[in-house]
Amino acid sequence: MSSSFGKNLKISVFGASHGTTIGAVVDGLPCGFTIDETALLRFMKRRAPGQSLVTTQRKEADQPHFLAGLVNGQLSGSPLSFYIENTNQHSKDYNNLRDVPRPSHADYTARVRYGDAVDMRGGGHFSGRLTAPLCCAGGIALQILKARGIEIAAHLRQIGAVKDKSISFTEPAMADLQKAGFETVAMVSPQERLRAITYIDELRQTGNSTGGIIEVFATGLPAGLGNPNFDGIENRLTTALFGIPGVKGVAFGSGFEGCLSTGAEQNDPFLLENGTVRTLNNNSGGIQGGITNGMPLVLQVGMKPTASIAAVQPSFSYEQQKNVELQIKGRHDPCIAVRAVPVVEAVTALVLLDFLLDHNIQFN
Amino acid sequence: MSSSFGKNLKISVFGASHGTTIGAVVDGLPCGFTIDETALLRFMKRRAPGQSLVTTQRKEADQPHFLAGLVNGQLSGSPLSFYIENTNQHSKDYNNLRDVPRPSHADYTARVRYGDAVDMRGGGHFSGRLTAPLCCAGGIALQILKARGIEIAAHLRQIGAVKDKSISFTEPAMADLQKAGFETVAMVSPQERLRAITYIDELRQTGNSTGGIIEVFATGLPAGLGNPNFDGIENRLTTALFGIPGVKGVAFGSGFEGCLSTGAEQNDPFLLENGTVRTLNNNSGGIQGGITNGMPLVLQVGMKPTASIAAVQPSFSYEQQKNVELQIKGRHDPCIAVRAVPVVEAVTALVLLDFLLDHNIQFN
Amino acid sequence: MSSSFGKNLKISVFGASHGTTIGAVVDGLPCGFTIDETALLRFMKRRAPGQSLVTTQRKEADQPHFLAGLVNGQLSGSPLSFYIENTNQHSKDYNNLRDVPRPSHADYTARVRYGDAVDMRGGGHFSGRLTAPLCCAGGIALQILKARGIEIAAHLRQIGAVKDKSISFTEPAMADLQKAGFETVAMVSPQERLRAITYIDELRQTGNSTGGIIEVFATGLPAGLGNPNFDGIENRLTTALFGIPGVKGVAFGSGFEGCLSTGAEQNDPFLLENGTVRTLNNNSGGIQGGITNGMPLVLQVGMKPTASIAAVQPSFSYEQQKNVELQIKGRHDPCIAVRAVPVVEAVTALVLLDFLLDHNIQFN
Amino acid sequence: MSSSFGKNLKISVFGASHGTTIGAVVDGLPCGFTIDETALLRFMKRRAPGQSLVTTQRKEADQPHFLAGLVNGQLSGSPLSFYIENTNQHSKDYNNLRDVPRPSHADYTARVRYGDAVDMRGGGHFSGRLTAPLCCAGGIALQILKARGIEIAAHLRQIGAVKDKSISFTEPAMADLQKAGFETVAMVSPQERLRAITYIDELRQTGNSTGGIIEVFATGLPAGLGNPNFDGIENRLTTALFGIPGVKGVAFGSGFEGCLSTGAEQNDPFLLENGTVRTLNNNSGGIQGGITNGMPLVLQVGMKPTASIAAVQPSFSYEQQKNVELQIKGRHDPCIAVRAVPVVEAVTALVLLDFLLDHNIQFN
Repeated sequence: MSSSFGKNLKISVFGASHGTTIGAVVDGLPCGFTIDETALLRFMKRRAPGQSLVTTQRKEADQPHFLAGLVNGQLSGSPLSFYIENTNQHSKDYNNLRDVPRPSHADYTARVRYGDAVDMRGGGHFSGRLTAPLCCAGGIALQILKARGIEIAAHLRQIGAVKDKSISFTEPAMADLQKAGFETVAMVSPQERLRAITYIDELRQTGNSTGGIIEVFATGLPAGLGNPNFDGIENRLTTALFGIPGVKGVAFGSGFEGCLSTGAEQNDPFLLENGTVRTLNNNSGGIQGGITNGMPLVLQVGMKPTASIAAVQPSFSYEQQKNVELQIKGRHDPCIAVRAVPVVEAVTALVLLDFLLDHNIQFN
Repeated sequence: MSSSFGKNLKISVFGASHGTTIGAVVDGLPCGFTIDETALLRFMKRRAPGQSLVTTQRKEADQPHFLAGLVNGQLSGSPLSFYIENTNQHSKDYNNLRDVPRPSHADYTARVRYGDAVDMRGGGHFSGRLTAPLCCAGGIALQILKARGIEIAAHLRQIGAVKDKSISFTEPAMADLQKAGFETVAMVSPQERLRAITYIDELRQTGNSTGGIIEVFATGLPAGLGNPNFDGIENRLTTALFGIPGVKGVAFGSGFEGCLSTGAEQNDPFLLENGTVRTLNNNSGGIQGGITNGMPLVLQVGMKPTASIAAVQPSFSYEQQKNVELQIKGRHDPCIAVRAVPVVEAVTALVLLDFLLDHNIQFN
Repeated sequence: MSSSFGKNLKISVFGASHGTTIGAVVDGLPCGFTIDETALLRFMKRRAPGQSLVTTQRKEADQPHFLAGLVNGQLSGSPLSFYIENTNQHSKDYNNLRDVPRPSHADYTARVRYGDAVDMRGGGHFSGRLTAPLCCAGGIALQILKARGIEIAAHLRQIGAVKDKSISFTEPAMADLQKAGFETVAMVSPQERLRAITYIDELRQTGNSTGGIIEVFATGLPAGLGNPNFDGIENRLTTALFGIPGVKGVAFGSGFEGCLSTGAEQNDPFLLENGTVRTLNNNSGGIQGGITNGMPLVLQVGMKPTASIAAVQPSFSYEQQKNVELQIKGRHDPCIAVRAVPVVEAVTALVLLDFLLDHNIQFN
Repeated sequence: MSSSFGKNLKISVFGASHGTTIGAVVDGLPCGFTIDETALLRFMKRRAPGQSLVTTQRKEADQPHFLAGLVNGQLSGSPLSFYIENTNQHSKDYNNLRDVPRPSHADYTARVRYGDAVDMRGGGHFSGRLTAPLCCAGGIALQILKARGIEIAAHLRQIGAVKDKSISFTEPAMADLQKAGFETVAMVSPQERLRAITYIDELRQTGNSTGGIIEVFATGLPAGLGNPNFDGIENRLTTALFGIPGVKGVAFGSGFEGCLSTGAEQNDPFLLENGTVRTLNNNSGGIQGGITNGMPLVLQVGMKPTASIAAVQPSFSYEQQKNVELQIKGRHDPCIAVRAVPVVEAVTALVLLDFLLDHNIQFN
C-alpha cells in the first residue's frame, strides 16, 4: 500500500480496523526531547471513540505502547515505534460485507487493486481507525512545536447549515480554539455547538450522517518555511491530509470563496511594523509561493458524510453476480468530522515539523 | 527550489519569467509513442498569452524546441527535454519591485527563503509563465492517454457570480467541454460565457481582477488505479496541482458542498450492469480510498484572483525600511483562471499517466 | 535517522541494541501470499547469535511477533509489522562507553550528529542487531521470489587468506550454496570451511577479529528488470546493502579484479540458444546498463573486521577532555561476516522483489 | 528511465550519444554563488574526448549553453539548466548495431526493457557521453565546496598491473592529486603514469581495452554529515556513482583489502589534539555509521574495461534470429577509467554538497 509520508520526518502507519493492533514508526523526531505522556494521552483522547452520543459506540482506550525510540521518556534519536491495541472490534458485524461492497467505501476499489485476499473487515487498513497512530505521532509533534512557540488549533467551521463563529485570520483566538477542542463538538460558539450536536443527533436517530468543514490555524511559524512549485507548504500538507480517510477537499486562506472574489478584496497588503513585516489581511492563509510569510497558517479541510448509514442501499454480490440490497450493521460515527479535528491538527503538526527540519532548526 | 514531481513519470521544470528560456525534462514517457506536434501546439496555444481582451497582452509564441528524447517525432525512451524562448518580457516594468514586494505575490517570501540574489523579475521561477512547459509535457500525456481511451477535459465552473451550466458527474459531456476549451473563456454555456467575458473585462477596466473555479473530468480510467493513505489519486494530484501558481484549493467529486450534505444524499450506491460495476451517483468523483472506481474522475481547482492589480497598494521598501505605496505596472491577466484551464488538464494528465505507469500498462 | 528504503516495497526498521525491542514495517508485500513461518524461523536462525564459537555469546531467540499485516498466516495487503524482543542485552558492559567512544564504531559520529542524548548503548540504532528485522522481512521476500522460480544464495568467498571454492558465474551451484548456508561458516568447501573456523577461533582467542567477503548469486531473474543511470539494479542494491553495519564495499560480477583485466577477457559474448539469449561468460554479473540480462546476478559484499576487539585501544574521554585508553567489554563476534551471509541474502531479496514490483508482476 | 538523483540537490540528466544535445537540470544550488566559468571549462576539458592517444578520437568541445538559473554568472536560485551540443557523432558506424547487440553493452537489456523503438545509437542515453553534463554540474559543486574549504581530488590508483604511488589516507597530498588530474593519465607518479600510458596504447593497438581503479579523496568535510542505515554517505554516494556507465564496484577506506585484514590492524583509534578529534589511521575512509568523522573521505571506484573492442565477437541477429559475428566500428576509449577521473570527482562533489544542504549550511 502506501502508508508513509514525510521528507525529514517519516511517518509509516500500520494496522487494520479489525486486526490485533495499529501503530506507526516515526523517524526523524529530534533527539533528546522529553515527551509529556499525560498531555499526549489527553490529546489522543479527543479522537478516541465511544465518548458521546455524536460519536461511534465502539470503545477503545487508544493507549500507545512504545516499542522503541524512547529512553526514560526522552526521544533517543532512533525511530519512535509504538502500537495501540484493538480491543473492541466486532468483526461479525462485517460478515456480509466481504461479499457485498458498501457504497462510498473502499471495499470495491481495494478488491480491484489488491485481490480478494485483502482484509477489509471494518475498512481494514483504509479505516479511520488508522488515524489513532497519526494522533499519537502528531501529538508529539505538537509538543515539540509548542516548545518553539508554534501553536496549532482547529475547529469545526461548519456542520450542515450550522456555522461556528468566524475566527480572525490575522489574530486567531488560539486559546478559544484550544478550549473548544475538548468539547463534544469543537465549535467555539456554545450556541452553535449545541445546534450542531442536536443536528448530528437527529441524523443519527434517522440512520443518516453528515460531514463538515474543519478549519486549522497555526501561529508562531517563522517566515521562509517551504518551497515553490511542487514541494511547498500546500503540496506537502495536502499529501498528508488526503491520507485521512474521508477528506474530500483542502483549501488555504480564504479558500474557494476567495477565488470567487476580486483581487482588490483578496490581496494582503504589507505593513512594516517595528521592523517586522506583516500583512493587513491574511486571505493568503500565511503562504505565498509555497512559503510561509510569518502570518498565521490557515486552511480548511472538507470531511465527507460518514458513508456507513443505517438505511438500506443498493449494491451487488460478488458471489451471486447480481444486484442486492445492503443493510450495514456495526457502530458508526454519525459525523466523522467531529473526531477528525485532532487528527487534522496532528497531521498539520507533523508536516510543519517536517518543514522546520528542512531548515535544520534545532529542538533541544 | 523544488521544481520536480512524479514517481514513474518525473517532470522537472526550469526557467524564470524574465530569463532567456523556460522548459522541462520529462523522464518516463513511454518509448515509441509518436507525438502529434500540430495537436500539441494547438493545445499549448490555449494557454498562450496575448490572445484576447481577458488575458495579458504579453505575447509569446510558446513554441517548444526539443533538445532530446525525440527521434523523428517518436519518443526514444530517454528523457524528453525542451525549452521555450521568452521573447516578450518587459523587465523594466519590474525595476521598482526589487525593492518593494508586491502584495499576495512571492516576492517577499522568496527573498526570506533564498536571499536577495534570488531573481524575482516578473515572478521569476514562481511565475505562471512556468505553466507553459507543464502544458507541453501534459499535452503529450493527454495524447498518450487518449490513445488508450482516456479523455480529460475541464471548464470554468464559476467566475465571480457567473456559473457555467452544470456538467453531469456520471456522464460528463466531454465533447462539449473539449469544444469549450477553445473558446475565449472555457464555459460550455454560450450565455454564461458571454456574461463571464463581460464581467472580467469590467474588472480589467477598473484595474481589478478575479479568480475562478475550474472543474476537471477524466473518463475512461480503469478501476484500481491508486493507493490508500498517502499515495492515492488525491495525494499525487494535489501535490502536482498546488504547483500551479495561484491554486488555493482542490476538492474531489461533490467537494466542500458535499461535505455539508448528508450520507443519504451523498453515497454512491453500486449497480452491476452487464457484468460491469458502476455507481448510481458519482459524488465520490470516481475515487474511493484513494483508488479509482471506474467512474469519471471529477475535481475542482480554485484559482485566486490575479494578485497584480492596477490599484495603488500598501507595501514597504527594503532599502528605506519604511512603508510605501506601490503601483504595479506591466501587463497582467485580469483572471488567471481563464488561461489555467489547459494547465489543470495538463497536470491532471501527467499525474494520471504516472498512475498508469505504476501498473506498468504498456502504451505501444 | 534514515531507517527506511525501497520504492514499491518500503522497509522501515526500528529499535536499538539495548532497547526493549527491534522490528520493522514492510509495506508493499503482495497481498494473499501465505508465509511459511517454520521456514522463516529456520532462515532467521542462520543470523541469530550465540550458536557457535565463532559468533558472539549473546543469545537471542529472534522470534518475530507480528503486529499487523498477517491474517491466518496470509499477507493481508496492509503493511506487515513485527517486533523482536531484546532479552539478553548486558547494558552495564557499555557503561564506560558513554564517555569514551569506541574506535571504528559510530559512537563519536552519532554524538556529533544527534547530540549527547542519542542512545548508543551496544551501538544503539547503528548496531548489527538491527539486521534481525531485515532477515525477517527478507526471509519473507525470499519465499515470495522462490515461488516465482527466483533463488538467492550466498557464501563466504574469502575470510583472511582462506578462499572458498570458486563458484561458477554462469551456472552457480545453488543447492551447494544453500546447504553451506546452514554450516557454522557458509563455505561450500568443507576443507576451507574448517580452515576458516580455525582462523577465526585463533583470532577470537587473541582478542582480535577479521572481516570477509560475501558473494551472492540470484538465479531465475527475468531479463529487463532495472533502469539505467541512477535507479538500476546496482544503485538500489547498494543503497540497501550499505545499510548493513560493517559493509565497506560492493562490487558486481568480476568486480574490482575484472576492472584490472582487459575487455577481451571480460566481455560476455551473446549466444542465442533455442530462442533464448544468454552470454558465454558472466563477468557483468547479470547486469548491463543497470538492467538484468537474464544471467545469474552476481555480487560481492566486503564486511570489515569487527571493530570491538579485546585489545586496549587509544581513545578520548568527553568528560575529562583528554586521551585515555579504552578496554571494550561485552560479547562480540570475532567475524561479523559469518552471520552477515543471510542478511546479505535477505537484503538482496528485498531489493529484487522491489524491482519485480516495478513491473507489476503478480504474485498470487 | 531514471535519470535523476539527489535529495536537496536534484540532478536530472538528458540526452543521448547520437542525439542533438545532452544536458541537465540542477535544482537546489545555493542562490547567489558566482560561477567561475573559465575554471568550469578547464575542469570539463579533463573529461572531454579527443585529447590524447589513450582516449577516443571523437572530438567534442563540451561547451555548456546555459538556458536558465544564471543571471550575470550568478546562480539565481531557480534550477540551473544547460545543454551541450553533440557535434561529432558518427551514427553510421552504428548501423549494424541496431540488429546485433554489442557484448557487455546495454543494447540487449535496453531493448528488452523499453522495446525496439529505444534509441541506442552509440549507447543512446546509456552512453558515457552523459557524463559530460555530470561534469558541468559537479564542476560547479566543486567550486561551491572549495569556497567552504572542502577539496576533492582523485587519481588512477591502478590500471592493469600498473599501480600509482600510494596516497596517505590521513593526509592526502591534495595538490599532487589535483596536478595529476591535468595529466594524460591521472597518476601522481610520473614513472607509473608513463607505464600506464604505454600499457593502454599497446592494448589500443591490438584492439583490446582495459579498466582501472579510481581513488577519490575529499578533505575539509565537517564531522557529522550523513545518516545511519539507508541514507548515509556510502548509500547516497553509491547511488550516484553507479550512475556512471562502467562502474562495477565502490569501496570505502581500506576497501575490500581491509575486509581481509584484522580488527587490530584496521581500527582507527581516536586522538584528541588541541580540542579536535581525529583518528590515527583512516581505514574507515572518514565515515563511521554512515556519518563523516572529520577525517578525509576516501573511496575507490572500479571501472570496467571498455566493452567496445575491435576484435570480432560472438553475438546474434534479432532479424535473422541466429548467432552471428560482430565487428564493432567507431572510435572508442581504450580505457574509460582515464576520462572517468573528473566524472567521479564531479559526482562525489554533487553528493557531498547534497549532504551539506541537509544541514542547511549557507553558502553565500
